[in-house]
Amino acid sequence: MPPRVAGSEKSQKQNSRSCPTVARTLKLTIAYDGTDFAGWQRQPSQRTVQGVLEHALSQITGSPVRTAASGRTDAGVHALGQVVSFDTHSQLAPDVLMRALNARLPQDVVVLDAADVVPGFHATADAIKKRYRYQLHDGPVRDVFQRRYVWHVRYRLDADRMQSAAQGLIGRHDFRSFESKWPNRRTSVRTVFEIEIHRDRDNDPNRITLEIEADGFLYNMVRTITGTLVEVGRGARDTQWPTEVLRAMNRSAAGPTAPPQGLFLLRVHY
Amino acid sequence: MPPRVAGSEKSQKQNSRSCPTVARTLKLTIAYDGTDFAGWQRQPSQRTVQGVLEHALSQITGSPVRTAASGRTDAGVHALGQVVSFDTHSQLAPDVLMRALNARLPQDVVVLDAADVVPGFHATADAIKKRYRYQLHDGPVRDVFQRRYVWHVRYRLDADRMQSAAQGLIGRHDFRSFESKWPNRRTSVRTVFEIEIHRDRDNDPNRITLEIEADGFLYNMVRTITGTLVEVGRGARDTQWPTEVLRAMNRSAAGPTAPPQGLFLLRVHY
Repeated sequence: MPPRVAGSEKSQKQNSRSCPTVARTLKLTIAYDGTDFAGWQRQPSQRTVQGVLEHALSQITGSPVRTAASGRTDAGVHALGQVVSFDTHSQLAPDVLMRALNARLPQDVVVLDAADVVPGFHATADAIKKRYRYQLHDGPVRDVFQRRYVWHVRYRLDADRMQSAAQGLIGRHDFRSFESKWPNRRTSVRTVFEIEIHRDRDNDPNRITLEIEADGFLYNMVRTITGTLVEVGRGARDTQWPTEVLRAMNRSAAGPTAPPQGLFLLRVHY
Repeated sequence: MPPRVAGSEKSQKQNSRSCPTVARTLKLTIAYDGTDFAGWQRQPSQRTVQGVLEHALSQITGSPVRTAASGRTDAGVHALGQVVSFDTHSQLAPDVLMRALNARLPQDVVVLDAADVVPGFHATADAIKKRYRYQLHDGPVRDVFQRRYVWHVRYRLDADRMQSAAQGLIGRHDFRSFESKWPNRRTSVRTVFEIEIHRDRDNDPNRITLEIEADGFLYNMVRTITGTLVEVGRGARDTQWPTEVLRAMNRSAAGPTAPPQGLFLLRVHY
């Protein structure tokens, strides 16, 4: 266990002042438009969210900062509530740090919240569950204002059929049928707590939103589940099919991988 | 008066076949995301909406096409219902032309409707009234997904105060106080039929939408009216001030010009 120095705000401040070599751990909640990023993960000579965030953090704190995120989002995937942790010797108050970051970060990334957490907190390792949203658009003509944030499907979809078909995926299962490039994790068993699919009748009747919550996700899992459910929604497969795909434990049994721009990391629970 | 050859669909078709030199007039309703365009108007070596539309039309019809729009939108300004007219000898049915255009146009322009109209119809000259929308965002942090479509104002705004202040602008007035670079039209008298400002409490409580309908607009008129009303909304000016600005008949009396990305051409009436 890492040493836990967090106590009252006062004792923490005194501790930091007298022991400048003891780092604090900070937790950021950030949103980003993934369109113009090569994903979360830092890569040489690519524009990534981790790259621009660590650059801004290093400038503000005066020393190199290495961040961890709840999960790596792919190129083109967005976040409404990505969680990031890092250690720093900086004495800046969280709200000051947040304002300094937002003044320096490019327009497609923003810090929504910053907080001190118990030292050793790790955004990747400590995540308990995550919720993703996938946005579909099935209108007859594309929407130019939504094109960066939806998958425009050229078939009319039955959202109720998709919702009904999705219920066979709820629970603890081996999801390797929905993982690209299996195996790339120790285990492909995950627990899906909820899948909720509905047409947004009030605001945009051409918009279908899928939300999925699980204790973890395999590579491309949300996008492959979405691509599979779209096959049901357009009437090409029956509502039992996603359950058969799950049982097949083979990626080739599933539908296509939905494109990245419809996907949003919504929330992470710790 | 131009010759009017439109009659029943049948007679029009026969006419076109037997007299290929008589052009038809077509009316398009289009939407575009203005972010990556240098405005509507064709300009050498600039990416403009007119430029990409005429290029696609010329390719599809096989001859050069010159279009007219209801009005020229500036760089960064969007359209949900811009109206465009042009003459062509092409025999393509409007829905076939629309699909061909949407297959060729870039992702930030789309044709929503295409129709044959009486020859000589002119999208600029025949417009009776137009409606614009301006979107403001006054949340404490910027919204990365709305940044291309709102003006992020760093003060909390009172939408009811703005609505009340706007009512002094309704009616037939000389709007030269709200025109950049006056005089650039024969007359700066216009009739404003309606201004409607409200906070979008249901969907996004940080979003304020202004809609304005008039028989015509001077250069930057919507953006200058918006910038002036924002001064009232943030409490820097009282609700009578926009009426005083109007009476001053002097651009320097008005507030700042709101930035282009919040502005949408909504509808044009003929």
